[in-house]
Amino acid sequence: MPPTDAASTDRTKVRRLADRGRYDRDTINAILDEGLVCHMGFAVDGRPWVMPTTYARVDDRLYVHGAVANFALKTLSSGVEACVTVTLLDGLVLARSAFHHSMNYRSVMLFGHAERVLDPQEQYDAMVALVEHLVPGRRHDTRLPRPDELRKTLIVRLSLDECSAKVRTGGPVDDEEDMDLGHWAGVLPLTITPGRPQPDGGEAVPAYLSEWRITRGR
Amino acid sequence: MPPTDAASTDRTKVRRLADRGRYDRDTINAILDEGLVCHMGFAVDGRPWVMPTTYARVDDRLYVHGAVANFALKTLSSGVEACVTVTLLDGLVLARSAFHHSMNYRSVMLFGHAERVLDPQEQYDAMVALVEHLVPGRRHDTRLPRPDELRKTLIVRLSLDECSAKVRTGGPVDDEEDMDLGHWAGVLPLTITPGRPQPDGGEAVPAYLSEWRITRGR
Repeated sequence: MPPTDAASTDRTKVRRLADRGRYDRDTINAILDEGLVCHMGFAVDGRPWVMPTTYARVDDRLYVHGAVANFALKTLSSGVEACVTVTLLDGLVLARSAFHHSMNYRSVMLFGHAERVLDPQEQYDAMVALVEHLVPGRRHDTRLPRPDELRKTLIVRLSLDECSAKVRTGGPVDDEEDMDLGHWAGVLPLTITPGRPQPDGGEAVPAYLSEWRITRGR
Repeated sequence: MPPTDAASTDRTKVRRLADRGRYDRDTINAILDEGLVCHMGFAVDGRPWVMPTTYARVDDRLYVHGAVANFALKTLSSGVEACVTVTLLDGLVLARSAFHHSMNYRSVMLFGHAERVLDPQEQYDAMVALVEHLVPGRRHDTRLPRPDELRKTLIVRLSLDECSAKVRTGGPVDDEEDMDLGHWAGVLPLTITPGRPQPDGGEAVPAYLSEWRITRGR
């Protein structure tokens, strides 16, 4: 396995529909960099929690942040194991049979133990990365974090050591005997699209915002 | 509490930013009906898993399906507790400071024990609901499930007894001293938008598909 690959373990190995599994770091990074929301799972006394939040990838680390009182982050930084999933929905797959309906998607599932970030420089860099992840270019047009703000923020780091991606692309896979039923079949592509920016003040819409779709690679 | 409200328990009570909590069934149903993907969490030997999948709501029940060999569904139907989260991302909130950047979203978090659906009629109705949830109107233009297909499908049901919603709307909330920094601030609205249907055969694009955005209420 080349060194850029994420480790494929028993857990990250895609079992069902194994041809949809992807383990190379480029695929995993591209999904993480395009996504805006992750779903962060952990268990407390054996009971599961799944919390949506934003995140940012820096190299082989994923950062998640919130207020110091944030229940999920406090729990995660206490050392419990996490499973973080990012899912991009690319389309609805309409087959001739209800049974074969599907979705096109790209997802990443990451397992690991979160660690609280305590170093002020790493906290600062993570905060900037979190803003930059949402809106590339924004770091140059916002007031950057102050030490007192970093102290109010709980940031955790997960390493991308144990993760995998799952990808479905393409059209419906129908049974031969359904092909002539006359039902429309195919894919309805779906994209996250920005609307017109809604200003809170009088400043002109900056280029990095009007070009948001492009800069995020879609 | 009126009978249409979901039960607000210690777990579903929104603690951080409590004014974002919503407990009425109309809000919860609207989020579940608009979402396309849920993230289904459970723990095995104390270790968390978060799996993305589609779902459908029917009255006060949520249905999730997959192949009978599906690991997540087999685990869930063995009686372990689940946490299912649906998140709709409505926009990026750009504040004048990096610290106050946020997102507008609507999310539902549901706790419960999944039960495997064994009744063939309920299986059939759930399969139809799953297709209809993705593309309203599709049930009239697809071959509906056969008994052998239902036998190949594992469907689980979760009740909406213990759930809550969390909603953020509106613009950035900046510190007074940052208001005159000259940085653009406001909201970049985000919507899931359908592209041009990609046909697998020669049938004309049906109205329920070209009107998909409208029929799903956006």
